[in-house]
Amino acid sequence: MPDKVLIYSRFPKAMMARIGQRFELMDAAGKPPHEVFTAEQLSGVRAMITAGSTPLGGAMMDKMPALRAIVCYGTGYDGVDLAAAAQRKIAVGHSPAANAAAVADLAVTLMLAVTRRLLPADQYVRSGNWSAAKPSPLMRPQPGNPGRRVGVYGMGEIGRKIASRAAAFETEVGYFSRSRHDVPYQYLPSLEALAEWCGVLMIAVRAGADTHHAIDASILRKLGKDGYVVNISRGSVIDQQALVAALAEESIAGAGLDVYEMEPHPPDALTAFPNVVLTPHVGGHTLESHVAMQNCVIANLEAFFAGNPLPHTVRGT
Amino acid sequence: MPDKVLIYSRFPKAMMARIGQRFELMDAAGKPPHEVFTAEQLSGVRAMITAGSTPLGGAMMDKMPALRAIVCYGTGYDGVDLAAAAQRKIAVGHSPAANAAAVADLAVTLMLAVTRRLLPADQYVRSGNWSAAKPSPLMRPQPGNPGRRVGVYGMGEIGRKIASRAAAFETEVGYFSRSRHDVPYQYLPSLEALAEWCGVLMIAVRAGADTHHAIDASILRKLGKDGYVVNISRGSVIDQQALVAALAEESIAGAGLDVYEMEPHPPDALTAFPNVVLTPHVGGHTLESHVAMQNCVIANLEAFFAGNPLPHTVRGT
Repeated sequence: MPDKVLIYSRFPKAMMARIGQRFELMDAAGKPPHEVFTAEQLSGVRAMITAGSTPLGGAMMDKMPALRAIVCYGTGYDGVDLAAAAQRKIAVGHSPAANAAAVADLAVTLMLAVTRRLLPADQYVRSGNWSAAKPSPLMRPQPGNPGRRVGVYGMGEIGRKIASRAAAFETEVGYFSRSRHDVPYQYLPSLEALAEWCGVLMIAVRAGADTHHAIDASILRKLGKDGYVVNISRGSVIDQQALVAALAEESIAGAGLDVYEMEPHPPDALTAFPNVVLTPHVGGHTLESHVAMQNCVIANLEAFFAGNPLPHTVRGT
Repeated sequence: MPDKVLIYSRFPKAMMARIGQRFELMDAAGKPPHEVFTAEQLSGVRAMITAGSTPLGGAMMDKMPALRAIVCYGTGYDGVDLAAAAQRKIAVGHSPAANAAAVADLAVTLMLAVTRRLLPADQYVRSGNWSAAKPSPLMRPQPGNPGRRVGVYGMGEIGRKIASRAAAFETEVGYFSRSRHDVPYQYLPSLEALAEWCGVLMIAVRAGADTHHAIDASILRKLGKDGYVVNISRGSVIDQQALVAALAEESIAGAGLDVYEMEPHPPDALTAFPNVVLTPHVGGHTLESHVAMQNCVIANLEAFFAGNPLPHTVRGT
């Protein structure tokens, strides 16, 4: 009989198909598991899969007293209360780096699209306005990439891949991260200094208490009216209200966002701007990176049920 | 008294501002010059500025008997009848490479946007459908960049810059061009072989009789149903009717286009597809590349009026 695994977050069925061939999945589909399953059913749950960003605290863990493994699908684990898990001797695994290329690709796609005004350009062509007598002011030439200063906040796997991609566009790349890395990019001593220095701020830090609202009104002011911000990390890293205010008063030039404070609900104020590009948290969303993430999930679950430590474990758990 | 220069194509005023400080501009604004100026006025024209893609034949040249210099704004000169110009001892200049980075940037932007379905993704977020019960089929994971085969057709300044940018996304880059170049990319022996080999075909050849409709129904069939085509060169290189047919019958996956056979009039059939990204011939349209193109135009005109050969001359003219 295959081992039982609870699916905690809401996932498209296709993402769980391969995992379902190896394990018996109890799919709560994003609902509180105790509303979907009986206490007796939950008492048999020893491992679960979660999206990492879905809140998962000690009280929820206690509804599954046999739970000993939380396996995050993806690199993030910011929703998981790691202290609560440690207290209960629950191992926490994730899929490190499995989606780094896909996420970095989307970050650069957002940078290119927002700075080149790709969406207004496409609308201009489709609307037929291109043949109008007066060219649209939205189509005025914008600054290009060569010489542009791209600031990468966070220099993990994703940050490095963003940096190498951005550099290929003849940009100057700088970064700030808690520690200096052996990378061929200029190190700026603080997030403030990075925002002051760069023209495009690419957010690639891990979400957590230390990075919550790191991009606030003051950082956005330093970025300035010709500056852009791109976020493919987590919505919590930006003070979204401050971002909306900065866009409304045109104190920054635009934004490319794949993540939001409350998903799947980006604020209406944000969706009204023409100088933003918005994607529905699809950074890691390529066929190859899903396969790679599923490989990590399967490897973690197989090791766990064989009584071994998780091969892809969250550092410090 | 400043030298007189006829402006032949329709240009936004801002693009001619710097040039207008040095020369007296006679702006025909895209209309036939003999409808705007008297024969006597035209008889004094010794130099003109054109967009390169605007048709300019011997009959038109004859309306300006003193014409001795045609200066193209931009790298292209496909609209200029070079034989007719040579016969009349008219020098033809252009702005080689001045916009190569900007054009290559847009090519890669189009590739990334169309393969990642950026436009449907943005619409999905703005429409509020993201919070709907069923995820959109348009948001299904797509193949990503690492390992993707990017085929570059043409290996001039722009082709090289497209190749180096695409390679940074961990793709495999191949190319076909009339001759092999000393570049670190796989050479394919023909356009057919390139289309068969690649997943994204990037068009970076110069327009001309030899490349007219080079991308026809047969090449598109070789590209196949998972293949994309991106064109930042000239509309004439693609058989646009064949492209529309291939998109309609889904025998290719999508297209990113900055150029069209009849500008500014992309066919309605094209603008109806969700899996295309369309921009209004803005490849070279950045502040820096306009400055660089203007520098070439000014240098060509100054040399000409000083009685010297054009420094940025079209090869063979």
